[in-house]
This record gives sequence, C-alpha cells and structure tokens, in this order.
Amino acid sequence: MKKIAILGSTGSIGTQTLDVVAMHPEQFQVEGLAAGSNIELLLEQVTKFNPKKVSVATKELADQLKPQLPAGTKIYYGDEGLIEVAAETDSEFVVTAVMGSMGLPSTLAAIEAGKTIGLANKETLVTAGHLVTALAKKKGIRLLPIDSEHSAIFQCLNGEDASSIRQITLTASGGSFRDLTREQLQHVTVEDALKHPNWSMGSKITIDSATMVNKGLEVIEAHWLFGLPYEQIGVLLHPESIIHSFVEFRDSSIIAQLGNPDMRVPIQYALTYPERWSSPSSRLSLAQVGKLNFKEMDFERFPCLRLAFECGKMGGTAPTVFNAANEIAVSRFLRRDISFLQIESIIEDVLSKHQVQSEPDLMVIQEADHWARQLATEWKQ
Amino acid sequence: MKKIAILGSTGSIGTQTLDVVAMHPEQFQVEGLAAGSNIELLLEQVTKFNPKKVSVATKELADQLKPQLPAGTKIYYGDEGLIEVAAETDSEFVVTAVMGSMGLPSTLAAIEAGKTIGLANKETLVTAGHLVTALAKKKGIRLLPIDSEHSAIFQCLNGEDASSIRQITLTASGGSFRDLTREQLQHVTVEDALKHPNWSMGSKITIDSATMVNKGLEVIEAHWLFGLPYEQIGVLLHPESIIHSFVEFRDSSIIAQLGNPDMRVPIQYALTYPERWSSPSSRLSLAQVGKLNFKEMDFERFPCLRLAFECGKMGGTAPTVFNAANEIAVSRFLRRDISFLQIESIIEDVLSKHQVQSEPDLMVIQEADHWARQLATEWKQ
Repeated sequence: MKKIAILGSTGSIGTQTLDVVAMHPEQFQVEGLAAGSNIELLLEQVTKFNPKKVSVATKELADQLKPQLPAGTKIYYGDEGLIEVAAETDSEFVVTAVMGSMGLPSTLAAIEAGKTIGLANKETLVTAGHLVTALAKKKGIRLLPIDSEHSAIFQCLNGEDASSIRQITLTASGGSFRDLTREQLQHVTVEDALKHPNWSMGSKITIDSATMVNKGLEVIEAHWLFGLPYEQIGVLLHPESIIHSFVEFRDSSIIAQLGNPDMRVPIQYALTYPERWSSPSSRLSLAQVGKLNFKEMDFERFPCLRLAFECGKMGGTAPTVFNAANEIAVSRFLRRDISFLQIESIIEDVLSKHQVQSEPDLMVIQEADHWARQLATEWKQ
Repeated sequence: MKKIAILGSTGSIGTQTLDVVAMHPEQFQVEGLAAGSNIELLLEQVTKFNPKKVSVATKELADQLKPQLPAGTKIYYGDEGLIEVAAETDSEFVVTAVMGSMGLPSTLAAIEAGKTIGLANKETLVTAGHLVTALAKKKGIRLLPIDSEHSAIFQCLNGEDASSIRQITLTASGGSFRDLTREQLQHVTVEDALKHPNWSMGSKITIDSATMVNKGLEVIEAHWLFGLPYEQIGVLLHPESIIHSFVEFRDSSIIAQLGNPDMRVPIQYALTYPERWSSPSSRLSLAQVGKLNFKEMDFERFPCLRLAFECGKMGGTAPTVFNAANEIAVSRFLRRDISFLQIESIIEDVLSKHQVQSEPDLMVIQEADHWARQLATEWKQ
C-alpha cells in the first residue's frame, strides 16, 4: 500500500492520477488532496478516496467546503494549506501537479519532508532547478517525471549508466500551427490556437505547444532532471506524438519510448516505479498508425525554443523570466489583448531588459518572476 | 581485459566482431579463432590478433596453414577443433557465429565450460533451445544475443522485470520481394532475390529474408532467449529496418531500439554488456530518414512465417525439420534447381511427412535434421 498526496488534484494531471489510483484500489491510500477553487470536484474526490487532509485556495472556499466533509478529513487553505498537504501527511509519494509558480514552495516542502516526488509542475525545475535538485540529492529522494516526454527519457534510461548517454531528444508535435508559415501566423486566432492535434490539454499548455515554449520549458526541465548539458539535449519535430522521446547512447544505439497519447501511462509509471503494473490504456498498433514522420526542428520558425535554450544556458534567473513573461503573454493572447506572434515579442523584449542573477535563492527568483510579469503586463508594441 | 574466442571468425559476424575488438584494443584479448576454409583471411586475423588456438575445417587446410602460423598459435581442425576453440581456451566469452547446425555442439561445449555466449548461430536455439537454455541455466551463464532484432529486445528489456512484458515484436523489412504479389513471385530469379534492400548479408540469409523464414527462425529464437510463449511474440512489417524490434509492457508503454543497420552495434553491446562503450557506427538521424512505415504482417503472403510459428508451438523436432528443409531448399533455389515459391513447398511437404518427437536429445535432433535434408534434396514437384 503506497500512501500518496496530490497537489492540484482537480486539474488534468490530478484527476488522471486519481484515475490510476482507482484502477488499483488495493495498492494506494490517498493521504492528502490540494485543489484550487473547484470544490465540487474536490468534494467528490474526498468522498471517493477519503484523504486525511485537504486544502483549497482561500479561507472562503474552505469555510464553504468544511460542513460537507467527512469527520476524518481536515481542511486547510492558501499557500500554507498547500504546504500542509505536501509535507504534513503520512504520504511517501507526492504528485506535484499545481499550475504555475506556486508549485515551487510546496514541492520544496515535500522534498524537505523526505517524500518521493512525482513531478508534473514545470515551474519547479524551470525556475529553481538548482535548488530543487540539490535539496533532493541532500535528502536522498527521487524526482520522478510525470510529463510524457520526461517519463519517456526516464523509461529509456532504465538500468543504463548516465555516462553512456550521447544525446537525449524530446519530440515535439509542432502544435496546432505546425503547418503554417510565420506570415500565416500573423492572423491566427485564439480559437485556431486551441485546436491541438494530438493531446487534449488545458488552454495555456495548448498555446505553449503552438509557440514551442512548452518544449523549451521541457528542455530546461530535462537539463535538471537528467543532469545533462544543453548540448546533449535535442528537439525533433514528430507530428504524430507516438515516439514520446528517445535516448541515443554512445554506441549509436537509440532507445525510444512509444505509446498512444495517454497521460495515465507516465503517471502510473511514476507511481509504480521501478515496477510496471497493468493498465487499461489503449494499446498502440504501429500497423494501424502506418507512418511516423520526423522533421528537423526549425529554430527560425520557432524562435521561442531558441530563446529557451539560450535562457537555459544562461541559467540563474533567465528561465524564471522566460517562463513568467510567457505566462502573462499567453493570458493576454487568450483574452485577445495581443496577437499570437506578440507572445514571442513580449518574451524577447522582457528578456532583453533582464539582468540575469546567478544562483538565485527563492526570494530572488520570486522578485525576478514579479518583475517579468509586471513588464509583460505593461508591454505595448 | 576481456578474453574472447570467436567461432566463425572469417564470416560476416566474425569479421565484424574483430572490427569491434580492433576498436578497443586495450579491452580485449583474442584467445581463439575458428574458421572454415578461408585460411588466407584467418592468417591475417592471426597475425593481427595473436590467438593461442585456431581451428579450420579439415586436416588438409590445417597442414597448409600450420607452417605460416606464429610460434604461439596452436592449430586444430574439424568438429573437434571447433570444440577446442569453443571450450579449451582461457576465454570468458565465446561468439558463436558458425553457420548451420555444426554450431550446436560447439556452443554446448562452450556453455559446459562456463563461457558467456554471444549468440549469432541461429540453429543453436532453433533446433535445441530446450537443451541450450537448460544447460545455460544449470551453468549459470548468460546467452547474449547478437542478432540485431534479439539484441534490440534485450536492450529494451534492460532493467525491466520479465513478468511485466505484454508482447515483444520483431520487425521485418519484408526482404527483396516485399512489394510483389504471390503471382509475381512465381517468376523471380536468384539475382532478383539477392538484392536485399537494407542489410548487406550472405546469400542464404538474404533468401531467408525474402521468404520470411529468417523472421520465423528469429521468432523461435526469441521464444527461447526471452522465455516467452509464441502468443506473446509478434512480427511487424517495417520496410526501413530502423526500429530493430520493440517490447510492449503491460502498462501499454512500448520501448523500442533504433539505429542504422550496422551489426557492429549489437555485437559490441553483447561484448560490453551491461556497459555501453562508444562506437564509430554512424548516428541515426530520424529527421534525415523522415518517415518510418509499418504494415501488419500478412501470413498468407508469407506462409513460411506461419509455418515457423506452427513449428515453434509444436516444438520437439519440428523447428529442426523446418530449418533443415529450408537450408536444402534455399541451396537448390540458389543453384537454380527449383523456383522461389518451391522453397515453401519443400518446407511444407517435408514438415507434413514428419512425425514430431518431443524433448529430443542431440542424437534425435541430428537424425531429424538428416532425414529432413534427405527428403528436401529428393523433393520433386
């Protein structure tokens, strides 16, 4: 029986994690759930999984939910509530699937408390990879990736010595606009952007796929997760998203992980690692797929990916600023305040004004984050 | 320093094994080399690698070669010479790359002597999988595959628990006639057949690729190597031969091994396992390849593969008869004595007349082999 807590239980990764738990009810005990403001869904989850602690975004939501909770479930709220669920339960495994930069303090708290981490919050490693990996090493705990690309690399590396890696390659579908030229991109709408070809995801990440910012964040995550220099990390366009990523070893042998797009597979792998349990996820038939296509990444076509590599190599506060400027830019695009291509312009402009600080602590990271958000919010052409 | 011996050193696998050894001269010591009749090449190899024992096919060849050998190299010949090189040197690792059924006694002798086996001789597992795997288990030694497909599966399984396998799939290029219908196959010539699209191989194995007998033999080998029932072994048409084979686990995750066609990669992996050393083999660029194609295997189009599965499931002497009848049929086709499609007819006819004996010992296997060869030699339409 593995005891787990889930930060971000009502989001896409959170609900799918609970799907996996429900498939193996004898194997898991849910100790804690942290959500934002979707208290209806959280209540359903509490009824089904009986966690000892739950947390919501605000005191108001907590007061609203409290009378409906079973006697054995304690409720918390806000940043402190999130940390309570992350660090103060009997869980041995914490899934960190909170959206955005608020995921960082709670992940650090969970690591500090000695929990194994199922990592689905991008900002954790993007903004504070040096702090998180150092703390994980000090505490002797593992960071197990839940993202499909990183899980793929992790699965390919199983049993292999890291020193024998020549390169890892993250595959990228190319997003909803992969067949458009940069000229055509000038006139795309929010509705166009939200049609992702392979994965059904939230709107933020769907836009990030179209700009290739998502892949850029994944590259930075991969750098920290696998301890590889950026020169050993590649990105390949692969429209079908069937090969989720691959590793080339120094003997020129390539090991790849494949499957239908189904996040429950990497989630379950993180939960059961190093074992593999059976799963009802649909089986991939390569004969049915018929063809897999690959194309060299075009850094002119996708300048945000080039920027991400540059920020990664600069290190320090650069990735934080990249990520924060992008978050604001995407939200402005989604409310039709800027055009699609202006997402890039905002990121590039904000970065060009930033003075990178190396080895930042949490405070410095937060300051850089706020500064970038403000600049991105005020940005005008 | 790993001490090795090579049975079949002048063949395709043997020479490529020595290529790998030559790339890492500090890491290997060649203790023994066994060849057939190509004594010129063997002499070159002896001069370069200084083995303590060598063997050739006959006494005449041995007498011819002896005066030219350095003082430290002893010469042997015939079946006994092969066994001398297999079992009576200081080697810890023996590459068994002898062609045909003569590979079996020498492989058994090497296992009996406690050597780790780099297995490239198909007949060993096809005709006597039950004996070979039982002896290997008793002696506590590993059989490391050198065939690219089996090496691929072996690499994909690295660090994984065998119980979590749902299915393994061997990929098949389809051979030189993959785009022809059965009607068109009636008129193909030996010259047509010898043009294999992806791999440069000997003529026997090139014909075996076109008939899919080769894949059938690999299926039977995989059954023994990985201890899987035939129901868990699949074959997929993949014309590019870039994915060398793959494993589907019970969580629906697929791990595949990819690379350019280069036998030095699986040979080196067997020699260095569980490590991976660097290799000058050309790097695979999926962007350059552009497309990978896959097609369901067609057992009507390739009846020899269906027969191989049937023989594998029957077990006992059936695979021996399948293999022996095929060897004769291919040699008759190569000397233009029968047509391409008559290869199938011979195998099917000989099998239909065979009374399968289960759990055969070496003697029974040899008898079945001789019987099948005789029948196949005498076969007339």
